[in-house]
Amino acid sequence: MSDVVTFGETMLRLSPPDHRRLEDTDELELRAAGAESNVAIAAQRLGSADSTWTSKLPDSPLGRRVVAELNKYGIETDVVWSDEGRQGTYYLEHGGKPRGTNVIYDRGNTAISTAEAQEFDVDLIQGADVFFTTGITPALSPTLRETTMNMLKAARQGGTTTAFDFNYRRKLWSPEEAKGTLTKLFPGIDVLVIAARDAQNVLDIDGDPRQLAHTLGSQFDFTTVVVTRGSKGALAWHDNTVYDHGAYETETVDPIGTGDAFTGAFLARRLDGDDVPTALEYGAATAALKRTIPGDVALVTREEVEGVVSEDDEEISR
Amino acid sequence: MSDVVTFGETMLRLSPPDHRRLEDTDELELRAAGAESNVAIAAQRLGSADSTWTSKLPDSPLGRRVVAELNKYGIETDVVWSDEGRQGTYYLEHGGKPRGTNVIYDRGNTAISTAEAQEFDVDLIQGADVFFTTGITPALSPTLRETTMNMLKAARQGGTTTAFDFNYRRKLWSPEEAKGTLTKLFPGIDVLVIAARDAQNVLDIDGDPRQLAHTLGSQFDFTTVVVTRGSKGALAWHDNTVYDHGAYETETVDPIGTGDAFTGAFLARRLDGDDVPTALEYGAATAALKRTIPGDVALVTREEVEGVVSEDDEEISR
Amino acid sequence: MSDVVTFGETMLRLSPPDHRRLEDTDELELRAAGAESNVAIAAQRLGSADSTWTSKLPDSPLGRRVVAELNKYGIETDVVWSDEGRQGTYYLEHGGKPRGTNVIYDRGNTAISTAEAQEFDVDLIQGADVFFTTGITPALSPTLRETTMNMLKAARQGGTTTAFDFNYRRKLWSPEEAKGTLTKLFPGIDVLVIAARDAQNVLDIDGDPRQLAHTLGSQFDFTTVVVTRGSKGALAWHDNTVYDHGAYETETVDPIGTGDAFTGAFLARRLDGDDVPTALEYGAATAALKRTIPGDVALVTREEVEGVVSEDDEEISR
Amino acid sequence: MSDVVTFGETMLRLSPPDHRRLEDTDELELRAAGAESNVAIAAQRLGSADSTWTSKLPDSPLGRRVVAELNKYGIETDVVWSDEGRQGTYYLEHGGKPRGTNVIYDRGNTAISTAEAQEFDVDLIQGADVFFTTGITPALSPTLRETTMNMLKAARQGGTTTAFDFNYRRKLWSPEEAKGTLTKLFPGIDVLVIAARDAQNVLDIDGDPRQLAHTLGSQFDFTTVVVTRGSKGALAWHDNTVYDHGAYETETVDPIGTGDAFTGAFLARRLDGDDVPTALEYGAATAALKRTIPGDVALVTREEVEGVVSEDDEEISR
Amino acid sequence: MSDVVTFGETMLRLSPPDHRRLEDTDELELRAAGAESNVAIAAQRLGSADSTWTSKLPDSPLGRRVVAELNKYGIETDVVWSDEGRQGTYYLEHGGKPRGTNVIYDRGNTAISTAEAQEFDVDLIQGADVFFTTGITPALSPTLRETTMNMLKAARQGGTTTAFDFNYRRKLWSPEEAKGTLTKLFPGIDVLVIAARDAQNVLDIDGDPRQLAHTLGSQFDFTTVVVTRGSKGALAWHDNTVYDHGAYETETVDPIGTGDAFTGAFLARRLDGDDVPTALEYGAATAALKRTIPGDVALVTREEVEGVVSEDDEEISR
Amino acid sequence: MSDVVTFGETMLRLSPPDHRRLEDTDELELRAAGAESNVAIAAQRLGSADSTWTSKLPDSPLGRRVVAELNKYGIETDVVWSDEGRQGTYYLEHGGKPRGTNVIYDRGNTAISTAEAQEFDVDLIQGADVFFTTGITPALSPTLRETTMNMLKAARQGGTTTAFDFNYRRKLWSPEEAKGTLTKLFPGIDVLVIAARDAQNVLDIDGDPRQLAHTLGSQFDFTTVVVTRGSKGALAWHDNTVYDHGAYETETVDPIGTGDAFTGAFLARRLDGDDVPTALEYGAATAALKRTIPGDVALVTREEVEGVVSEDDEEISR
Repeated sequence: MSDVVTFGETMLRLSPPDHRRLEDTDELELRAAGAESNVAIAAQRLGSADSTWTSKLPDSPLGRRVVAELNKYGIETDVVWSDEGRQGTYYLEHGGKPRGTNVIYDRGNTAISTAEAQEFDVDLIQGADVFFTTGITPALSPTLRETTMNMLKAARQGGTTTAFDFNYRRKLWSPEEAKGTLTKLFPGIDVLVIAARDAQNVLDIDGDPRQLAHTLGSQFDFTTVVVTRGSKGALAWHDNTVYDHGAYETETVDPIGTGDAFTGAFLARRLDGDDVPTALEYGAATAALKRTIPGDVALVTREEVEGVVSEDDEEISR
Repeated sequence: MSDVVTFGETMLRLSPPDHRRLEDTDELELRAAGAESNVAIAAQRLGSADSTWTSKLPDSPLGRRVVAELNKYGIETDVVWSDEGRQGTYYLEHGGKPRGTNVIYDRGNTAISTAEAQEFDVDLIQGADVFFTTGITPALSPTLRETTMNMLKAARQGGTTTAFDFNYRRKLWSPEEAKGTLTKLFPGIDVLVIAARDAQNVLDIDGDPRQLAHTLGSQFDFTTVVVTRGSKGALAWHDNTVYDHGAYETETVDPIGTGDAFTGAFLARRLDGDDVPTALEYGAATAALKRTIPGDVALVTREEVEGVVSEDDEEISR
Repeated sequence: MSDVVTFGETMLRLSPPDHRRLEDTDELELRAAGAESNVAIAAQRLGSADSTWTSKLPDSPLGRRVVAELNKYGIETDVVWSDEGRQGTYYLEHGGKPRGTNVIYDRGNTAISTAEAQEFDVDLIQGADVFFTTGITPALSPTLRETTMNMLKAARQGGTTTAFDFNYRRKLWSPEEAKGTLTKLFPGIDVLVIAARDAQNVLDIDGDPRQLAHTLGSQFDFTTVVVTRGSKGALAWHDNTVYDHGAYETETVDPIGTGDAFTGAFLARRLDGDDVPTALEYGAATAALKRTIPGDVALVTREEVEGVVSEDDEEISR
Repeated sequence: MSDVVTFGETMLRLSPPDHRRLEDTDELELRAAGAESNVAIAAQRLGSADSTWTSKLPDSPLGRRVVAELNKYGIETDVVWSDEGRQGTYYLEHGGKPRGTNVIYDRGNTAISTAEAQEFDVDLIQGADVFFTTGITPALSPTLRETTMNMLKAARQGGTTTAFDFNYRRKLWSPEEAKGTLTKLFPGIDVLVIAARDAQNVLDIDGDPRQLAHTLGSQFDFTTVVVTRGSKGALAWHDNTVYDHGAYETETVDPIGTGDAFTGAFLARRLDGDDVPTALEYGAATAALKRTIPGDVALVTREEVEGVVSEDDEEISR
Repeated sequence: MSDVVTFGETMLRLSPPDHRRLEDTDELELRAAGAESNVAIAAQRLGSADSTWTSKLPDSPLGRRVVAELNKYGIETDVVWSDEGRQGTYYLEHGGKPRGTNVIYDRGNTAISTAEAQEFDVDLIQGADVFFTTGITPALSPTLRETTMNMLKAARQGGTTTAFDFNYRRKLWSPEEAKGTLTKLFPGIDVLVIAARDAQNVLDIDGDPRQLAHTLGSQFDFTTVVVTRGSKGALAWHDNTVYDHGAYETETVDPIGTGDAFTGAFLARRLDGDDVPTALEYGAATAALKRTIPGDVALVTREEVEGVVSEDDEEISR
Repeated sequence: MSDVVTFGETMLRLSPPDHRRLEDTDELELRAAGAESNVAIAAQRLGSADSTWTSKLPDSPLGRRVVAELNKYGIETDVVWSDEGRQGTYYLEHGGKPRGTNVIYDRGNTAISTAEAQEFDVDLIQGADVFFTTGITPALSPTLRETTMNMLKAARQGGTTTAFDFNYRRKLWSPEEAKGTLTKLFPGIDVLVIAARDAQNVLDIDGDPRQLAHTLGSQFDFTTVVVTRGSKGALAWHDNTVYDHGAYETETVDPIGTGDAFTGAFLARRLDGDDVPTALEYGAATAALKRTIPGDVALVTREEVEGVVSEDDEEISR
């Protein structure tokens, strides 16, 4: 039995090395990449929880490539292998300011887009302490909207805490579609993580970040609401109180997965009994470390995160 | 106006370096790859012909990446840019005996799969000396079966010689489907290139290679039939005579595109007025050189090909 | 017919990867590099203009390598192929502060150094809207001083606007030589681009940048004078008015070609009818993007440049 | 519970790319490498068995690196983490004839060298169908000689079949030491794998390979003896009969791990109920495929191995 | 005869490229790395001194790899080749803030750990102007504590100036051990270089950096004491006066070896007769340049260092 | 004093990796490459001789790059540094049959082309046991024809044995020019090495290889004549006897430098007193090993060469 179970699509990410452009590269770096597997890995590394990622993949070298990489990072995988549907991929160009990091999705007709709740192991989900998915999953297909709803319901029925990252992706759907779909899922969610920008632009909630957190927490009956603010840190609403934590200074090598690192660490520390301010602190430190590491995944140890929290600032450790 | 116009899908080919397996690689080599663009490039390099490749691609960095690489190799491109449909890709694992080279297609729902003949420049095709496509094109979608038929017809009407490589791909369709579809195209084709294996296994023609060539030539009213035999060379039936040419010894770095190099060179030399045996000789030499070069494309000069024909065998040229 | 024609030397640039030193590297990155081809590419990408780069190159794999790369970037090339003369090369070491970027030229006895005006296609130049070259060209040989003069004259006679980047290179000639030679070309030039530092140190003009622009514009009868100031932005004198534009914040991956990106974009926007302040804005944004991209060339789209202008500052676009 | 449990040292292997020499390289390829983990992986891939590799490693990023890679290949790992002792490493230079592949061990004072039988999970071993180790393990330290003996005993007591690869390494000990130590282990072993050369040179057994197999089988009371002969194939003595199988033709990319691939496949097929000749056939085919793949590990599928057995010889599969 | 002789361990440094983590890399960059060879190289490059590095290494491809790289950098090497003992290695992970650069030593049981003074060439040391070693050497083994003491004594007896970098490494020994051992060496040392942090935390000296320098200089009878302060610059106490110099602004590519670059340059300039403030200035400029260069070694020329001192700030030199 | 002194040009060699074509590569491998430095290195490695390579190079990072690499390989260098003249370079494309290895020289106007004998250290040459140069040196400029003659004379006068590799390069001069120039040098040469092909095609000598050796030896008053035959081995004429030795089987990674490896080993073994047949054997074995190693240089040990001679054929040494 796993303590944390996450559900969602993990893609193959293809990116030119050394800030090159896609039109100018003969080489691509290949990595497994998905919000839900990122969170599973961060959660497992930051606490005593064991994580399992569950999904549906094509039974091909590409699907197996995804699982091999996730296994390397130490989590369990529970995969429905399919003879139909593609492996999702995305192309990513890294660029500093003002170029920015650019994502080109090629995730149509994937195996997961047809996944229904009954294909997955309900005991795994109901036996977990936390079940986690994100707003990306229902954005992928009408079937997955249903499936996400059903899996959240199953988790609730099993007494499993449900956690959800809003994760709005404008290259997948419009704000209106996202709002309509995701707010329907809110009643089934205990812990919501949402970017301040998404709360404002997709959910149309007004106010400064503290007000956003309050509004979301009180309006939708969540246990906990975390509002992330990028380089400005994050807030958490819990028991009608809002806690705030700044972001740690960081030299960014790869910004992808920062939010997932934060969320995984936050959930893991909460599971291990830390209070909300401490969990925020670990979340922020894990996120800062993630940005120094290439790839989607927070390949960190709990000791390293605690080094950041305690602000041990030696440049070279030897 | 171009002398050779080819039509078909060019994909992005993604291959692990150094014989690695897909499940074990963090890196992929990226190249433009398609039988029809390969033939266009080989034809341009082996004779005085100018080549244009025409196709339909998604208007995305991936589609533009394909065109950039083909431009680099020196041919003209005439592309219908589409807001719908994917860029076709394939994953390729290089492996020597007994592993073999393995291709994993990811070419569903591509932009080209919806291409209709009227989207393309009929003047370009009718102004050319040769119009070339392959049996891969109609394998890609029902629409493209129609389109291939129509483009061959348009070429005929314009007095353009039509050339066609049978190119059966078992990962795209069954032998029965291929036979049914492709033999319907035969009346519109002047020059047919076909692997002996495909003639036997897909068209169910019996006999040794010479008999295959005769049977095909006489039965379907082609002007020229070329039967390729891999490392055993190739034959050509023309004016009721069969000519034979062995393959040159070669150290294979990349076998993909060998047949296209042969065909492009054969067509270019015929266009420049060489007789069939000479064109076979250039085809075989270009194919042998291709195998020493990584990628799909025969990046050779006519002088190098002539060096092979004349069997200049110095190991180091300095 | 091309809208923009540029003339000058394009070299092969050889640079160690990852900030390594030449004495310590076993690997070099190879790219086509030349101010005039850089400008041609930037101009084509930023407006509706078609660009052609014209030059003289050795008929060798090295010369063909240059043309292949420029074709990849989408411009036309019109090359005089020569059996005499070398392919120019330069070695480049990337280094941040205080090391700086270091260039070691190996561009003696090149094919272009003997190029005379009559070897090039006068119709191409006279049919263009803009003819562009830089102060590097006449620095390369006495013959090229003559040739540059003659080509500017031919352009003028054809009614083609002449644009010129002063581009002083202290590793090629002394300030005195440069001043003597280049000021003789000024009467044939409509649009001058010059670094403030060169105006001060080579042309010995005093004053702040605004004064420099005024002095140059009024003294030499240019239509437009652009004075570039690196990270402090650029100014343009036109119709007796000076316009100013700051530089956009940028994370530099490769500073080479920044000025060429600016100039290409400025010329393209002017050609498309934008006023001088708007052209400055596009120039600055293209220059900022260029610095985030490895290589000499501004591999950008007009949409990306407009994103910078409109200060869309999302870190990740997905 | 695992079906196959293997015990031994897995090192980090450091090898220069592209046939470079150690003294001339600035780059090393890094891989997990150990006979017993290789066998575990091959066994898992070739049959229905689940494999676990058990060992002792330093609790460091290097030890964790080993486990991460083995997890990637899909097996379970059961590791005793130690605060004492090094991670074993070896440097490997690839070279074709006459240079040969050269191994430089740096495996002194490793964590495993102090491992005692009681540190490991006896239930894991006694619950398995097969327990496997090799002659490398007792060569590493006097403690490990004891430990190997005790673990074989424990397996026997649990009713687990014991399999052992003789694997003499002349850079670790002398033939005399090896013979003395390893023959003491023979009574506890059911299935012995041994190279013909080692039987001759270390055990001083005379005769042709068939005689060697007979002598070993009858003299030491093994159930099965496999005698491997490199490119000449392998023989197996079982039920007083000797079976022979040739080696498949192969283009070698990396010869390391060939024997382990053979052994893993042989054991897996025997476990699944195949007879000895069939298991030899799978062993030989897996070994041939292994040589086409870089690294120590046979990253193959059962389908690919069966393709070799059935001699499907298409050069390109597409 | 060499002017500068340094003595200490040079290891092979193994580091993942591109900020990757050890657990996630398949590739390592390999370099020779040691404080004393770093100082020898910097000293040779910054003045007229010839440098020799002396040490003990295993007679293996790994030991020869170290010497080959040091020869490449232009210094002489005088090595005692040993059949016993390992080649020291360390693994290094580069990481920006807050991750930091992490060193994992694998330097136990090395050849040098058994080195005794009489194995080395006493004439070489006594014929030099400066003999240099660091506090790392005696940290490596009890034998080396003796040896370091004896070699400093021999140098003194020969009239050779002795210079010593305190270089406390917490992964090698405790502050108490270091203090006890190193202060016993102080009477034999003329020039001490020490980080302010080490003076405070290991030697338990109070006060601001100026006070530290004064205390150290007066208390232990050194000729010169240099106190380094990282990005805050360095101070030198000499003739009862303290001189101060700030650090130059620098874009760090590799921080390892910064202090060694400083020390080598300082010693070289002092040897060439520069006064202490000038030597500090060269030390600081060499250190700043070092940080822009990958690897342990300051691959700079004196001209480049002087360019930093004179604050020539052109971004591109061409 | 060195035992072997060699004189000639060492270039920077630039080659695309992985069999890529120059027109298709963005990356080049960089190495020092020259027949005379290759011979110096092979000679030093195969015997007890110390080698020095002497030459003239530009005082630039490129010239220093050459020396750094030669120092890495362990020989001494005695370089005349010049402010005039280029660093010679060549581009190399590796290709198997039928493509062949192609060399594109860019070695005009080099620093060495103006080198006169009096610029070099005559004591170095006259103090050596062997002075060696090749037919490439006089092919580089008229000045060097004179210089080569003068240096051979100086060596003779000093009692130094003179050795010379004919090394005809058709991309540098015609057979007629080569014959005229080189035969004039013959009277000053003791040991001549020449390819059978060059003896036939350039010197117009008839006969089978044994006859060639006899004719050359008797006609020109050499002490020893070695006739090399590529994969067919080599012969040596000495004391009016011809000795023959076949080539060892080898898997070629890089054929460049094969002859130099042979010659260096032959000379080193002769210097150490081996008879001619033994020296031929070492030459052939060194040449065979060289072909398995990338780069121009025979990075081998004497032990490895002796392993080839004794035909130790274990595939993996561990």
